[in-house]
Amino acid sequence: MKEQEFLSIINNTLKDNSFLGNDCALIEEGLYITQDTLVEDIHFDLKTISPFKLGYKSVAVNLSDLAAALSKPKYITISFSTPKSCTNDFVLNFYKGINFICEQYGVKVIGGDITGSDKICISITAIGKKISKFNISRNLAQVGDIVFTTGAHGLSAGGFYALQKNDTSFPMLVEAHLMPKPQLEAGYILSKIIKRDIAVMDTSDGLGDALYKIANMSDVTLKIDYNKLHKPEELIKAANKYNKQVEKFIFWGGEDYQLVGCIPKESLNKLDEKIFFPIGEVVSKGDHPVLIDNLDSIPFIEKNIFESETYNHFV
Amino acid sequence: MKEQEFLSIINNTLKDNSFLGNDCALIEEGLYITQDTLVEDIHFDLKTISPFKLGYKSVAVNLSDLAAALSKPKYITISFSTPKSCTNDFVLNFYKGINFICEQYGVKVIGGDITGSDKICISITAIGKKISKFNISRNLAQVGDIVFTTGAHGLSAGGFYALQKNDTSFPMLVEAHLMPKPQLEAGYILSKIIKRDIAVMDTSDGLGDALYKIANMSDVTLKIDYNKLHKPEELIKAANKYNKQVEKFIFWGGEDYQLVGCIPKESLNKLDEKIFFPIGEVVSKGDHPVLIDNLDSIPFIEKNIFESETYNHFV
Repeated sequence: MKEQEFLSIINNTLKDNSFLGNDCALIEEGLYITQDTLVEDIHFDLKTISPFKLGYKSVAVNLSDLAAALSKPKYITISFSTPKSCTNDFVLNFYKGINFICEQYGVKVIGGDITGSDKICISITAIGKKISKFNISRNLAQVGDIVFTTGAHGLSAGGFYALQKNDTSFPMLVEAHLMPKPQLEAGYILSKIIKRDIAVMDTSDGLGDALYKIANMSDVTLKIDYNKLHKPEELIKAANKYNKQVEKFIFWGGEDYQLVGCIPKESLNKLDEKIFFPIGEVVSKGDHPVLIDNLDSIPFIEKNIFESETYNHFV
Repeated sequence: MKEQEFLSIINNTLKDNSFLGNDCALIEEGLYITQDTLVEDIHFDLKTISPFKLGYKSVAVNLSDLAAALSKPKYITISFSTPKSCTNDFVLNFYKGINFICEQYGVKVIGGDITGSDKICISITAIGKKISKFNISRNLAQVGDIVFTTGAHGLSAGGFYALQKNDTSFPMLVEAHLMPKPQLEAGYILSKIIKRDIAVMDTSDGLGDALYKIANMSDVTLKIDYNKLHKPEELIKAANKYNKQVEKFIFWGGEDYQLVGCIPKESLNKLDEKIFFPIGEVVSKGDHPVLIDNLDSIPFIEKNIFESETYNHFV
């Protein structure tokens, strides 16, 4: 079953679906709640990730959603399902990875569950405090906004290929894949300077996916300048070596955990240009939700491309 | 790895483990948070549970933890991991079951995750509002308290056997196993009458387990009168038919989702005797954490018995 079909069933079945639609839900107590699950052999491969990094990354992907809500992470619960063969050493190093990132961002582990399973399954719920008086949602982009991002895309996908091929030539890409840094600092800075509700998402499912979702939910077109996107040399080399189009890595790679959002130009001008990079602008809704200037191979991002090519957790 | 070893690693690895030790964590925003995971072929068998009842039960087991914290459930997030073979119809009926119980208790589904997996894995986080000014924790039983419970134990385990054997003679037991009722009303009533912090737990892992944990954490002995425990006729018949000791079903069956707790006698006197049943008393710590009067086969519940015989999710 495709994700969209699944979501449509959920939306049509629940009597109250008003909270759904973003990665984080805002509850009236001023907290954002998000839950993400990583499943062995779907989201990760034990041959290429250590238990420490698996623990780190499981938390990082959840904190990334809180970063995109411009919120301050406070608590997580961890459900950790493991086969009987899982060793004490594995569990110890997994929780060391959890502890490492939690200490880094001042997050407390407040509970969870431990169960058996055939394959490892990690489901984490993260809770963050709302720190801006404005709201963040995918449907809040406005014509005239500048589209920004907080970093390069495609690195994680490149790192995934390097790990699969046991290729040690691309350490930056591998690091981006195994130890993604949630953009909490960027989220915090944004929370302090915005003067109205804005659209922000993380790019966990790919830059193309995030751009498409914001455009579609906000009923606008995002016009992206391909020349403005970062293309680190290591990424280009990896794409060439693995005979892949670099633009596919960039738009559909996924697991980059950067932020992408739309804000008024005057807000962008206040932001550190080493953290926030303008990549395009929001224009009136046209024939296509996302237009890519200066790129022949993917001139626009359509729903049908989105559905067939978006990041699918490598399966 | 045994659960106790696992918990010990978690406690020793996390820098701040102050929130751990109860099924629910209380955060400073006045909310209780709990997470429970159900894994196919470990916690449930698709041959014996319908998707509707699976959805219902996945939520019920989480609400039971909130009931034991005497809190009012408000929100849940649902992570639902399914194999590709999972049909639209299955997903639809699963969410109908979720919606049914959520409407019943005024709970909102605010988010979650959907992923692939080899076997179905459901991880739900439930959030409830603290409604009593007093605290609930396993370590708060006091000498002189009365031990109470909210219903019969062993029914769910009996129902599990009946389902495995395709035996339709025990509908009450099967219902107790597939559609457990979280004791939210009992929790709410308790929250209104208690005048100090008390020990309460749900009996998801068995009555024996809950009694042992409260005794051990509170450093007291719980003296239980076996004659005061409910033994529904259907349970006795099932135990006889399946050649099992009924007392093992009662103490180690698990998945009963009743409440067990310790409160002063004057509080118990205010409670509806059709909902709250005294089953024993809290005495000074003796040689054994839990003593069972009027029962020859299990005169006391020791840690070593606890570890070997406690409910192990039928594996």
